[in-house]
Amino acid sequence: MAKITKINHIAIAVPDIETALSFWRDALGLQIDHIEDVPSQQATVVFIPVGDSEVELVKPTSSETGVARFIAERGGGMHHLCFEVDNIEEMLATLKEKGIRLINESPLELPGRKMAFIHPKSTGGVLVELYQYTS
Amino acid sequence: MAKITKINHIAIAVPDIETALSFWRDALGLQIDHIEDVPSQQATVVFIPVGDSEVELVKPTSSETGVARFIAERGGGMHHLCFEVDNIEEMLATLKEKGIRLINESPLELPGRKMAFIHPKSTGGVLVELYQYTS
Repeated sequence: MAKITKINHIAIAVPDIETALSFWRDALGLQIDHIEDVPSQQATVVFIPVGDSEVELVKPTSSETGVARFIAERGGGMHHLCFEVDNIEEMLATLKEKGIRLINESPLELPGRKMAFIHPKSTGGVLVELYQYTS
Repeated sequence: MAKITKINHIAIAVPDIETALSFWRDALGLQIDHIEDVPSQQATVVFIPVGDSEVELVKPTSSETGVARFIAERGGGMHHLCFEVDNIEEMLATLKEKGIRLINESPLELPGRKMAFIHPKSTGGVLVELYQYTS
């Protein structure tokens, strides 16, 4: 059976990168790995390694994304929780069999990884992402 | 300067333990370490190790707690993010000096650990907890 191996990241929706950095970097003292424009997510993402996981600060670059709507509704905050899994297709098949509602029934294939989201209706209100690294 | 060393846990507010377990344990396949009544938090907590961190499912046992109000407003979901820090007093002093609003200006001392919460007004909407293990 497919197995979750770790928390890959916690994504935090932020309306403004500089304001976010003034807390996460300048006050908490976390070290930024890099900041990247991610056109596939219509977002700028700050990658912050913390122990064996990451905090990702996600600033939308379009008002049409889920993260942009989340910020419009709530102002910002924890947006999703991403787990690494050793076999994403098998995990998605298991979840489907158990009646869990999936946002992506098949994984999206990106360079170096596959990913899929589980619908918060089936998780008690948590948007859960699954990652499997492929290289 | 005090340093954050890892994500200790992500706390997820749940209105019902059995419903939560049907997703986190039975569908995702995560292994429960233990389930504990935590009178100091007025909650029952399910401890789920994931890699080097934990997911904690928190079910309030009183309607007066922050977690209970969170569930009443949102139905459930990610409630707070807890980081381990190597010197919590020093971290709180640094945060205060930088104008960050703290819920606990001094750490609460519990058996084996000290803890404090940072106010979400200063973090962009994330309730952040700090832990330092003392034994």
